[in-house]
Amino acid sequence: MDTGTAFALAAPLAIGIAAFGSGIGLGLAVKGAMEAIGRQPEASGKILTTMIIGAALIEALTIYALIVFFITLGRTG
Amino acid sequence: MDTGTAFALAAPLAIGIAAFGSGIGLGLAVKGAMEAIGRQPEASGKILTTMIIGAALIEALTIYALIVFFITLGRTG
Amino acid sequence: MDTGTAFALAAPLAIGIAAFGSGIGLGLAVKGAMEAIGRQPEASGKILTTMIIGAALIEALTIYALIVFFITLGRTG
Amino acid sequence: MDTGTAFALAAPLAIGIAAFGSGIGLGLAVKGAMEAIGRQPEASGKILTTMIIGAALIEALTIYALIVFFITLGRTG
Amino acid sequence: MDTGTAFALAAPLAIGIAAFGSGIGLGLAVKGAMEAIGRQPEASGKILTTMIIGAALIEALTIYALIVFFITLGRTG
Amino acid sequence: MDTGTAFALAAPLAIGIAAFGSGIGLGLAVKGAMEAIGRQPEASGKILTTMIIGAALIEALTIYALIVFFITLGRTG
Amino acid sequence: MDTGTAFALAAPLAIGIAAFGSGIGLGLAVKGAMEAIGRQPEASGKILTTMIIGAALIEALTIYALIVFFITLGRTG
Amino acid sequence: MDTGTAFALAAPLAIGIAAFGSGIGLGLAVKGAMEAIGRQPEASGKILTTMIIGAALIEALTIYALIVFFITLGRTG
Amino acid sequence: MDTGTAFALAAPLAIGIAAFGSGIGLGLAVKGAMEAIGRQPEASGKILTTMIIGAALIEALTIYALIVFFITLGRTG
Amino acid sequence: MDTGTAFALAAPLAIGIAAFGSGIGLGLAVKGAMEAIGRQPEASGKILTTMIIGAALIEALTIYALIVFFITLGRTG
Amino acid sequence: MDTGTAFALAAPLAIGIAAFGSGIGLGLAVKGAMEAIGRQPEASGKILTTMIIGAALIEALTIYALIVFFITLGRTG
Amino acid sequence: MDTGTAFALAAPLAIGIAAFGSGIGLGLAVKGAMEAIGRQPEASGKILTTMIIGAALIEALTIYALIVFFITLGRTG
Amino acid sequence: MDTGTAFALAAPLAIGIAAFGSGIGLGLAVKGAMEAIGRQPEASGKILTTMIIGAALIEALTIYALIVFFITLGRTG
Amino acid sequence: MDTGTAFALAAPLAIGIAAFGSGIGLGLAVKGAMEAIGRQPEASGKILTTMIIGAALIEALTIYALIVFFITLGRTG
Repeated sequence: MDTGTAFALAAPLAIGIAAFGSGIGLGLAVKGAMEAIGRQPEASGKILTTMIIGAALIEALTIYALIVFFITLGRTG
Repeated sequence: MDTGTAFALAAPLAIGIAAFGSGIGLGLAVKGAMEAIGRQPEASGKILTTMIIGAALIEALTIYALIVFFITLGRTG
Repeated sequence: MDTGTAFALAAPLAIGIAAFGSGIGLGLAVKGAMEAIGRQPEASGKILTTMIIGAALIEALTIYALIVFFITLGRTG
Repeated sequence: MDTGTAFALAAPLAIGIAAFGSGIGLGLAVKGAMEAIGRQPEASGKILTTMIIGAALIEALTIYALIVFFITLGRTG
Repeated sequence: MDTGTAFALAAPLAIGIAAFGSGIGLGLAVKGAMEAIGRQPEASGKILTTMIIGAALIEALTIYALIVFFITLGRTG
Repeated sequence: MDTGTAFALAAPLAIGIAAFGSGIGLGLAVKGAMEAIGRQPEASGKILTTMIIGAALIEALTIYALIVFFITLGRTG
Repeated sequence: MDTGTAFALAAPLAIGIAAFGSGIGLGLAVKGAMEAIGRQPEASGKILTTMIIGAALIEALTIYALIVFFITLGRTG
Repeated sequence: MDTGTAFALAAPLAIGIAAFGSGIGLGLAVKGAMEAIGRQPEASGKILTTMIIGAALIEALTIYALIVFFITLGRTG
Repeated sequence: MDTGTAFALAAPLAIGIAAFGSGIGLGLAVKGAMEAIGRQPEASGKILTTMIIGAALIEALTIYALIVFFITLGRTG
Repeated sequence: MDTGTAFALAAPLAIGIAAFGSGIGLGLAVKGAMEAIGRQPEASGKILTTMIIGAALIEALTIYALIVFFITLGRTG
Repeated sequence: MDTGTAFALAAPLAIGIAAFGSGIGLGLAVKGAMEAIGRQPEASGKILTTMIIGAALIEALTIYALIVFFITLGRTG
Repeated sequence: MDTGTAFALAAPLAIGIAAFGSGIGLGLAVKGAMEAIGRQPEASGKILTTMIIGAALIEALTIYALIVFFITLGRTG
Repeated sequence: MDTGTAFALAAPLAIGIAAFGSGIGLGLAVKGAMEAIGRQPEASGKILTTMIIGAALIEALTIYALIVFFITLGRTG
Repeated sequence: MDTGTAFALAAPLAIGIAAFGSGIGLGLAVKGAMEAIGRQPEASGKILTTMIIGAALIEALTIYALIVFFITLGRTG
């Protein structure tokens, strides 16, 4: 197995695994936001802002894996 | 195993794994929305809006894997 | 292993894995809807609407994997 | 391993894995329905309707895998 | 490995995996029914009816895998 | 590996895996029955009847795998 | 690998896996019985009877795997 | 791999796996007994009797695997 | 791989796996005992006796695996 | 397999696995922040600050894996 | 692979796996002791004694694996 | 496989696995901090200090794996 | 694979696996101590003493694996 | 595979696995400390001291694996 094949196997799987964890993490975050709004509807502005900051941080984790994929894409030609 | 075969194995599985995590995450988010509406039915507008923002962020994770699949599709010809 | 065989292995499994996660996610969502109706039967209209929106988003995840299967089907001939 | 054999391995397993997740998901949904009826027996009509809609959505996930199996069946002849 | 052998490996395992998930799901459903009857014994008729509808839907998932087994049985001769 | 050997490997394992899930599911069901009787001892008749119906449905899942074993037994001679 | 060896590998493992799930299931059932007696000591007769019926149903799952072992034993000679 | 070697691999592992599940199950059962005595010390006789009946049923599961080991021992000579 | 090697691989691992489950089970049992004493310090005699009976039953599971090891030890010479 | 291939396999997977854990961790952190704001909306400034400090620490874990990827990238040329 | 190598692989891993389960079990036991002392500080003598008896029983499980290692050590020379 | 390749496979994966556990651990720690601030906003200084000490200890675990990577990097040239 | 290589693979992994379980166990124990002090600060002396006894017992499990490593180190020369 | 390669594979992975468990354990410990301070801010000195003792014990587990790495490093040259 040469380097290009190894990247071609590992990089897409890394995105899948990262998205798996980020998906569960985002789900927990959104669930928390739902419960907070359900308890304090008048604070929904603050909660939405905080949720989006948190979600951006979680999205970033999968985007790191996506960056790795694009960098290795040139190697697998 | 050449590069095209490696992409052909890894990219669909990455979508599956990403969808696995996103599915559980979305389920948690929707469950949270249900419980919030069940507790505060009059806030269902705000809750629905927040849920859809959160769901869009979670869907994005699987769509990243889908993008990877379409990019690698040209390589597996 | 050639590209067609790799797609033939990975694409159906991706649907299975995606459906696994979506199934648990949908189960959580429907459970949440049940509990919300059990607590606020008069809000069942809103809850049902929100549940169906959430369920559509979760179904979409498995449908992404289904799309991948149909695209790769032409490659495995 | 040729394409037909790969489909013959992956498609039945995909149904099994999809049914695994759908089974747990349906179980959660039915459990939620039971608890809701146990709390509000007079709302059992609404709850049963919502449960069956949710269950249909969850069943659909395994049926996607079943469709994949029937499509690939012609390829494995 | 030819197609018949692949079906002979995958189809029985698919039934096992489907039954695994369905078994846990049915257990959750029956547990929910028990708790509902324990809380509202006078509603046991409605609960039993709903449980059997839910159980039939869960059984269906394993029966899909069983159908796959019988279809592939002719191929493995 | 020929078809008979594949059945000989997969069919007993399928029973084991099905029994694994059914065992946990039955355990949940019986636990629910215990708790219901502990809360409403006078409803123990109804609870026992419902538990046995539920248990029969769960047993059926493992029996499906057992049927598969007996059908494939003739093929492994 | 011939059929006898495949049975010799799969049948004992099936008993182990079935016993694994049945063991956890029985543990849940007995735990439920304990808690029920701890709450309603005067109903311990009914609880013990129900527990033994449930336990017999769970034991049956492992005994199915045991039957499979004894049937396949003649094939592995 | 001949039949004797297959039994020599599978039978001890089956005991280990069965003991794994039985160990967790027994732990749950004993934990339940402890909690029941902690709540109703005067019912400790009934609880101990029920726990030992339950424990005997759980032990039986590992003993089934042990019987399998002793039967196959003659085959591995 | 001959029979002796198979026993030499499987028997120690069986002890490890059995000890894994028994360890968690014993931990649950001792935790239950702790909580019971923390709630009813004056019943600590009864609780300790019951805990030791339960622990002996759990220990037995690992000792079964140990017996298997000593029986197979003569075969691996 | 040479060193470059080993790095090409291991480094992207390490990012995926690190992102998996960090994603769940961040999700727990953001969920905690949501619940805290839902309980004390007036303290949302302090909570947001603490959440971002915590999130930065969690992000750092995936960035360590990203650094490893960039260092090894020169080795895989 | 000869018998000595098989013992050299399996025996240390068995200690690791046994210690894994015992570690979690001991942690549960010590956590229970902590909670009991936190609730009834004046019963800390009884609790400590019971905890040490329980801990000794859990330690024994890993020591069984250690004994197996020392017995097999002579075989691996 | 030579030593350099083994290090090149194992060291990045070790960082990934360490970051996985540390990420979940940090998430639990930050979640605890959030809940503590949500309950006692006036103690947020003490809580933040303790959280950062704890987080530094958790980060250290992944840094150990990072040190291992840099030490082995010279070996994989 | 000779005996020295088998020890070189299995012994370090055994320490890792043992440390994994001990780490979680110690975490549970320390968490219990924290909660106990948070509830009864004046009993912190007794709690700290008990925690250190418990922690020593948990540490011992990993030290057993460490002893195994040092004994086998001479064999791997 | 020679001894040096085996150490080069197993030792870094052992650190990763140990850090995984220690990370979760430390997270539980720090979470417990947070909750304790959130409940009893005035006892934060005692809690911090106990947390650091506990954390040192948990860190030690990963350091054992680190020691193993440095000892085996000389063997892999």
